[in-house]
Amino acid sequence: MIEPIRWNNGQLEIIDQTELPVTCKTLALHTASEVWEAIHSLRVRGAPAIGICAAYGVVTGFKERMPHTPATAQAAIEEIASYLAGSRPTAVNLFWALDRMRRVAREADGDAPEALEARLLEEAHAVFEEERGRCKAIGEHGAALLPDGAAMLTHCNTGPLATGAYGTALAAAFRAHELGRAIRVYADETRPLLQGARLTTWELQQAGIPCTLICDGAAAHVLRQGVIDVVIVGADRIAANGDAANKIGTYHLALAAAAHGVPFYVAAPISTIDIETPCGDGILIEERDGAEITHGFGRQTAPDGVDVYNPAFDVTPARLIEGIITERGILRPPCESAIAELFSETQEAAR
Amino acid sequence: MIEPIRWNNGQLEIIDQTELPVTCKTLALHTASEVWEAIHSLRVRGAPAIGICAAYGVVTGFKERMPHTPATAQAAIEEIASYLAGSRPTAVNLFWALDRMRRVAREADGDAPEALEARLLEEAHAVFEEERGRCKAIGEHGAALLPDGAAMLTHCNTGPLATGAYGTALAAAFRAHELGRAIRVYADETRPLLQGARLTTWELQQAGIPCTLICDGAAAHVLRQGVIDVVIVGADRIAANGDAANKIGTYHLALAAAAHGVPFYVAAPISTIDIETPCGDGILIEERDGAEITHGFGRQTAPDGVDVYNPAFDVTPARLIEGIITERGILRPPCESAIAELFSETQEAAR
Repeated sequence: MIEPIRWNNGQLEIIDQTELPVTCKTLALHTASEVWEAIHSLRVRGAPAIGICAAYGVVTGFKERMPHTPATAQAAIEEIASYLAGSRPTAVNLFWALDRMRRVAREADGDAPEALEARLLEEAHAVFEEERGRCKAIGEHGAALLPDGAAMLTHCNTGPLATGAYGTALAAAFRAHELGRAIRVYADETRPLLQGARLTTWELQQAGIPCTLICDGAAAHVLRQGVIDVVIVGADRIAANGDAANKIGTYHLALAAAAHGVPFYVAAPISTIDIETPCGDGILIEERDGAEITHGFGRQTAPDGVDVYNPAFDVTPARLIEGIITERGILRPPCESAIAELFSETQEAAR
Repeated sequence: MIEPIRWNNGQLEIIDQTELPVTCKTLALHTASEVWEAIHSLRVRGAPAIGICAAYGVVTGFKERMPHTPATAQAAIEEIASYLAGSRPTAVNLFWALDRMRRVAREADGDAPEALEARLLEEAHAVFEEERGRCKAIGEHGAALLPDGAAMLTHCNTGPLATGAYGTALAAAFRAHELGRAIRVYADETRPLLQGARLTTWELQQAGIPCTLICDGAAAHVLRQGVIDVVIVGADRIAANGDAANKIGTYHLALAAAAHGVPFYVAAPISTIDIETPCGDGILIEERDGAEITHGFGRQTAPDGVDVYNPAFDVTPARLIEGIITERGILRPPCESAIAELFSETQEAAR
């Protein structure tokens, strides 16, 4: 499997996602400002991948500065973390990972810089390993839906490029393939930004998993032909009742799956569930620049001045979802009570 | 309204559709080979528009050659018609229009070349006028579905650029606008060839009709917001039971409309109905080059060697269609009997 982020010979290396799918270029990031630029310019993207990259970015910045005393080391980490936090101002995983690095540093206050550096690197590895473990578990549960000969249909990009390893929805395919099952993935190209065409098909190709690219609008036609056994997509946010926000086009796909009796699953870590939001109506849909549609790929494809509506996400209601694949297993309908039970267990475990 | 094809000062002029939506360039076509090239290179596209252009193309070729005797005039027309027939080998309207011009020429066999030229021009005007009349009637019936304040959603391009004037599905919007009603059209961009983004929005802009461009996958999200009153699309072929083949994505849209209780109409001239094909299963779906998806925007957007499935059309089953808007009125469900009745009336009228 591809390694979009790795710590290699004491330095951070990433696959430059802006060059995909035409070129696969590995970039070594030697300074905090190179890490900042890589996140800012979407060379690394996907919430978990950004978090991992930022954690290693703190180590990178620390090595770059080489502070000589415990006090200057603490100050350096504060500065590096604040600086990296500005690379993508809306990325929750970025802040979360940086806060974790800050906390580790404060806990080691007084330690020699060398010891602190080792502790930071250990924590960055832990961030990565925990992410990898969650994705692997999601893949394990998801793979149960993909017996030998199965075909899944997916939307957007939910593979290792977005998560560091395995992915969420796509983890099911990677795991089924690892288990030696002959499967095929149909990938929606995913307008407007074509994450499916650019990234998902590339990841599957690299892993040797047969894959067919289709236009988003062709999904219903493909479903009707009876060639799809299961639809699995990711999620950006899941409400307490199981309504799931994901890339625009997901809801459209869920309706087509329902019309053909094909089970529709959402795969996401439990951290995606926002227990404070009762249902999908409470999820604000980001509206993005119309130029993503009218000037998408180096060419103007709509007239000047045209009015464009470009919502980044839509919400699939829980009633269309056959299950939510998490690292703790598949939550089955009624999702609302499955989620409530999961969170009460988690709270009890925390006591 | 724009005039994509016109006979002006004794010559054929077209809007070069390959330059849209960035530039609106009118081309004068002075020779048969210029007409051939314009059709072949998709400067003119849309079945009815191609037919009209080919009819005028015969006149253009005849004027270019200026034959001196009735016999050379007949031979010239045969040659020009055969030549133009090769410009788009699968365009039924092209052959139909050229056969019509040939027939007129044969009926006038023996006439002086000047008289024959006048007769040919008259026939080309008739081809255009009949098309315009059919579209205008479709628009009249369709406009009844668009009261003041209504919003329609459409897919692909079905306006004057495709038909010479008014269009089919879009004719409803043009006519409602002419009647002074404040309407809005939501246009699917229509992947892979973006006819909605490139052509439909431009036509509506030119006519001053408010219009909003969306990605195909956003249609379900927009329908759910309750802002769409009616969906109207065109058709490439309609089976005897009312199943309708149209641009890929149409069936996906029909499912989303059904899920939200929004009426879904197909607008097409009666000639689109293929009474010999009992149902949609009998309609062969053209599969097109994957490069339309992977290299669509002037840049490669999917990895080399990726498998692509690119069906040009899909079939919307009659049960999802609220009515078929024809030049003779709206055929209502059950479409099968409405179509049978229409064709038996037509046959009786022909006796």
